[in-house]
Amino acid sequence: MLRTHTCGELNMKNVGEKTTLSGWVQKSRDLGGMTFIDLRDRYGITQLVFNLETDKELCMKARKLGREFVIQAMGVVEERSNKNLKMPTGEIEIAVTDFKILNESKTPPFTIEDESDGGDELRMKYRYLDLRRNPLRRNLELRHRMSIETRKYMDSQRFLEIETPYLIKSTPEGARDFVVPSRMNKNQFYALPQSPQTFKQLLMVAGYDRYYQLVKCFRDEDLRADRQPEFTQIDCEMAFVEQEDILNTFEGLARHLFKEIKGIDVAEFPRMTYADAMKNYGIDKPDLRFEMKFVELNDVAKNKGFQVFDDSELIVGICAKKCAEYTRKQLDALIDFVKKPQIGAKGLVYVKCNDDGTFKSSVDKFFDQEALKTWAKKMNAKTGDLLLVLSGETERVQKQLGELRIEMANQLGLKDPNNFKPLWVVDFPLLEWDEESGRFHAMHHPFTSPKKEDIELLSTDPGKVRANAYDMVINGVEIGGGSIRIFNKDLQKKMFKILGFTDEDAQAQFGFLMNAFEFGAPPHGGVAFGFDRWVALFGGSDSIRDYIAFPKNNAGRDQMIDSPSQISQVQLDELSLKLIKD
Amino acid sequence: MLRTHTCGELNMKNVGEKTTLSGWVQKSRDLGGMTFIDLRDRYGITQLVFNLETDKELCMKARKLGREFVIQAMGVVEERSNKNLKMPTGEIEIAVTDFKILNESKTPPFTIEDESDGGDELRMKYRYLDLRRNPLRRNLELRHRMSIETRKYMDSQRFLEIETPYLIKSTPEGARDFVVPSRMNKNQFYALPQSPQTFKQLLMVAGYDRYYQLVKCFRDEDLRADRQPEFTQIDCEMAFVEQEDILNTFEGLARHLFKEIKGIDVAEFPRMTYADAMKNYGIDKPDLRFEMKFVELNDVAKNKGFQVFDDSELIVGICAKKCAEYTRKQLDALIDFVKKPQIGAKGLVYVKCNDDGTFKSSVDKFFDQEALKTWAKKMNAKTGDLLLVLSGETERVQKQLGELRIEMANQLGLKDPNNFKPLWVVDFPLLEWDEESGRFHAMHHPFTSPKKEDIELLSTDPGKVRANAYDMVINGVEIGGGSIRIFNKDLQKKMFKILGFTDEDAQAQFGFLMNAFEFGAPPHGGVAFGFDRWVALFGGSDSIRDYIAFPKNNAGRDQMIDSPSQISQVQLDELSLKLIKD
Repeated sequence: MLRTHTCGELNMKNVGEKTTLSGWVQKSRDLGGMTFIDLRDRYGITQLVFNLETDKELCMKARKLGREFVIQAMGVVEERSNKNLKMPTGEIEIAVTDFKILNESKTPPFTIEDESDGGDELRMKYRYLDLRRNPLRRNLELRHRMSIETRKYMDSQRFLEIETPYLIKSTPEGARDFVVPSRMNKNQFYALPQSPQTFKQLLMVAGYDRYYQLVKCFRDEDLRADRQPEFTQIDCEMAFVEQEDILNTFEGLARHLFKEIKGIDVAEFPRMTYADAMKNYGIDKPDLRFEMKFVELNDVAKNKGFQVFDDSELIVGICAKKCAEYTRKQLDALIDFVKKPQIGAKGLVYVKCNDDGTFKSSVDKFFDQEALKTWAKKMNAKTGDLLLVLSGETERVQKQLGELRIEMANQLGLKDPNNFKPLWVVDFPLLEWDEESGRFHAMHHPFTSPKKEDIELLSTDPGKVRANAYDMVINGVEIGGGSIRIFNKDLQKKMFKILGFTDEDAQAQFGFLMNAFEFGAPPHGGVAFGFDRWVALFGGSDSIRDYIAFPKNNAGRDQMIDSPSQISQVQLDELSLKLIKD
Repeated sequence: MLRTHTCGELNMKNVGEKTTLSGWVQKSRDLGGMTFIDLRDRYGITQLVFNLETDKELCMKARKLGREFVIQAMGVVEERSNKNLKMPTGEIEIAVTDFKILNESKTPPFTIEDESDGGDELRMKYRYLDLRRNPLRRNLELRHRMSIETRKYMDSQRFLEIETPYLIKSTPEGARDFVVPSRMNKNQFYALPQSPQTFKQLLMVAGYDRYYQLVKCFRDEDLRADRQPEFTQIDCEMAFVEQEDILNTFEGLARHLFKEIKGIDVAEFPRMTYADAMKNYGIDKPDLRFEMKFVELNDVAKNKGFQVFDDSELIVGICAKKCAEYTRKQLDALIDFVKKPQIGAKGLVYVKCNDDGTFKSSVDKFFDQEALKTWAKKMNAKTGDLLLVLSGETERVQKQLGELRIEMANQLGLKDPNNFKPLWVVDFPLLEWDEESGRFHAMHHPFTSPKKEDIELLSTDPGKVRANAYDMVINGVEIGGGSIRIFNKDLQKKMFKILGFTDEDAQAQFGFLMNAFEFGAPPHGGVAFGFDRWVALFGGSDSIRDYIAFPKNNAGRDQMIDSPSQISQVQLDELSLKLIKD
C-alpha cells in the first residue's frame, strides 16, 4: 500500500506515530517559516506541516505543489497548536519528513470545494473532477449504503436476487424501447428492458416465490429534468400473497431503510385510496408533510348568485394558515400561478380571515360576511388565515388545487426535507382513457389484475374498474408502485383485448407469458421502486442526477465521454444497417 | 399470505398444529383408501394425505389433481407411520381438511424431476418449467448466496459499489460491441459495455479509492459453449496500491467465498509466473489438482540419432502414474488425440515403465534400455508409470503437452470437483503479436502498465515486455484477471501508438481518459472476475448456462421469449435506420 493510514483516521491517540499518507493537495498556505498543506482523500483531510527552518529543501519543494497534485507523504503525527475541533483529524498534523509526487495536476477548470464555481456543463464534462467534491462523494456513499441495506433486508425476508436478461424483446406497450441490432440474427433486434416485468412473473411461475433485483432499466423518452434514459430499480415479486402482504413486506423495507440510513423510526404507513387522494389532495402522490386538505364548498357557495360557482361541478378550497396578510401583489401572483397554461384555472377566489373577525374576499359582491363566515367555519379557518378557492369540472379543478396546494407549501416553507411522511396510495383505476388514440391504456401495466368485485365492470364500464395496484409515496414523491398480477390466461387475454391488442399481436409479443400461465401459475404480485429517486429523497434533493456517478444530460448525451457517437462502416455492414441521412 | 408455512419447514415439533400450505403437485399416489400428494414449493416437499373413508368427497377431488396443479391445502400436522428420514419434513404429513385449486396445469412437456426427460431445446423453450427442477433452483440459490457474500466482503474492506452506465461509447479495441442506435442523436450510437474499464479508472481519478460492482457486460462474439453475449462480472478497482496489495485483497475475497460458501479453508495461493506456467504446464491457467509437471528431456534425448528429436527445439514429457498397462488401442487413441488439428502434434513418443524394471517405448529403435532409464529417472517415474513425450518448436509443443496433460487427467479421473487448487499467475506479457493484422495486441487491455524494469524494452523489443498483470486461476479455470494500470498520459499515449492507434484515433476514443490523467490521477489497478464462471465452478459444473436464470443459446437467441425479433417500421424510421436485406 502506498499509505499506512487514510486522511480521515489519525487523531490524538496516534501522536508520536510514524505515518504515510497518500492523497490530493486540497490547498496549501505559507505562514512565515511554515507551510501547511491540506491533504485530501475519500476519508477526510489531514494537515501536513513543513518547517522552513528545520528542512529548507523539503519545505521549498512543498511550496511548489499545486492544487490536486497527488502526493505520498511520510512523517510523524503531532499535536496541533491551533486545533480545529470541527474535523475528526483537527487536533493533529503530520510533521512531514519526506514526500513524493505521485502525479502532477493541471489547474482544475473549477474549484474542488463543497460550493464549486463550475457551471453545469463544465462539471458534467469533467465529471471525474466534480465527483471529487464532498457533496457528490456523500451522495454516492449514501447510494452504496442504501443498496447494502436494501439487500440485507430482502435477504432477511428470504428473497433471492436473480439476474434477468438485458437483451430482450421489443414490445410496443409502454414507453419507447432502446433496441440493439443483432449481428447473428440478421435484420432482427433485441430491446433493452424497460423493466424485468415479464421475467419476474415467469420466475413466480417457476416457483421462486420471492424475487428481487437491483437492476438497470431503460426508456427512450424525451428527457425531463429528473429522468434518465437508464435508471435503477429495486424490482420485486412475491407469490402466494395478497395485496396486504406486499404492502406489509415493503413497508418493512422502507422502515428498515429509514431506521438504518436516516436513524428515524417511522409510524405505520397510512393507506389512502386513489379516489380519496384525488378528492382531498388533487394528486395521486400527496405530500402529507403539510395539511391544507381540500374542503368542498358546494353546499355553502353554490347557487348563491355567483355565476362562476353556479356553473361549476365542484367548488373546493384550501386554508393557508396565517396568510391573511398576503399583499395584493402576492395574491395576484397566486392568480397568475393558477392561470398558467400548465395549470389552466380560469381564476382564483380568496377570502382573508382578518384579525378583527371580518372577512375580505375577491367575491364580496356575491357573498356577505355571514356567508363567508360559513365558508371559514367549514374550512376550520382561524383569524389570520387565507382561504383559496377554485371551481370548475371536478377532475380538473382537483388537479389545479393540488398544484396550488404544493405552491403554497413551497411559499410557506412547509417542505422540510428532514420530515418524512410516507403512505400507500391504493385502489388505482385499472385503465385510463387516452383521447389521442381513442382507446384505454393500462394505468399501471397490462399485467395488473382488476379487483374481483369490479371484474364484471370490465365488460360494461371498463373505466370504472379499480385495480389491485398501489404506490408507495413519500413527501409527494412516488417512490415505487406495483400490483397484484393477472395469473389466468383467459383474463390476461381479455385484458389485452381491452387494451386494443389483436389476438395475433398479443400472442406474438406475450405468447410466452400466456403459455406459462397454463402450466400452474401461482397467484403473485410485486412492486418496483425507483432507486435513484429514493436515494435522492433520502439525500434531501429533487435531482436524481446528483446521485448517479455518470449521468446523461437532457439530450441523452454523456458529455464526458462524448457519447453517443458515430460507428464505423464495418460495424454498420456487419449489422446489415444503413443510416438514413437528411 | 396464502400459506402459514412453507413446504420445507414442518417437522415433529409441529405435530398437532393447524397449517395452510401452498404449492405445486409434484406427484400423487392412491394406496387403497388413502391418497398421498407430494406438495412442492421452493423450500421443500411436504406430504399431504387424504382419507377416502373419513372424507370421500375431498379425497375424490384430490384424486383429480394433475401434476403441477397449484393448490392451497389446509390441514393438521400428523406424525407419519412410514417415515422418510432423508427429507426434513419426512417424519410428518398433513391430514388435509380442505383444499383449493389456485390454478390448473396442462401436463408439462417434460418431467419436473432432478433428472428430467426433456431435451435441451425443449427445456430452453419452457425455461420457467425447467427452473422448477431442484438442480437449477440450487444453482440460482448458490448464485444469490455468492453475490451476498461477495458484497459482504467487499463492504467490509470499505469498497463502494458504484453503478457505471450501460449506454456508453463504441471502441474498436477488444471484442465486438453491441451498439444501440440513438433516436435523439441522429445517426449516432451508444455501445453496451464490454466492461466498465474506463469508468472504474475515472472513479480512481475521482478519488473513490476502492470501487466494485456486480455488473452485466456484453460481447457480440460468435458463441462457444461456455460463453454468453451478456455475462456478469465482479468488477473492482483500487487506488494507492501495488500489485501485491491487489493480490492479497482479492485472495481475501476468494478465501471468504471458499469459507462461507463451500466451508473450506484454503491455503495461501501460490504465485506462478506466466513463463513458469507455460514451461511447466503448457497453459496460462494450470490445473493444480494433479501433478504431471513437464520435464524437459533435451539433454538426455537430443542428438542421440533420432531425427525427430534432433530437429526439435524442445523435447518434453509428462509422467502418467500407473498407466504402463495402457493397451495398444489406448495408446493409439492418445496419438490420435495429439494429432487432432486443434492440437496439431505430429506424433507422440511413449515409454512404459514395466513392472519388471524394463522399458517398452515407441522409440526402442533409437533409445536402448539404459537411455530410457535416464529419461525415467529424470521424470521421477516409478515402475508401472507411462511417460508421454512430445517434441517440436518450444511454444507449440508446450501447448500440445498442456492439452495432453489435461486429457490424461480426464482419463484418470483426477479432476475432483470438490478439490480446489487456486493460484495467481503473474507477470503476463504486455503484448502479443497478431500474425493476421501484423501488429501487437494488448494481451490484457491497452491500459495495463508494463513492469518498470521492462519499460525500456518498449522501444527495442516490445514482445519481451512483461506487464503488471495477473490472473486468478482455480482448477484450470481463469476466474478473474487484472492489472496495475498506466496512470501517466505520456505512457498511455505511447502504449496506444504501439498498439497501432493514430494520435487522432486515440484522442477520439480515449481522449477523456488521457485528459483525466492530467488532473492528478493516482496509481491504481484492479481486477474483474467472471461471476457466472465462478458460481459454476463452486457448483461443480463447466456449464455457465445452468447458473443463469434465462440464458441464450449458441445463436444468441432467447428461445423462450423468441428474441431477437423484428421491430416495426415506425421504430426503424424513428431511429433513421434502414435494413439491408439479401
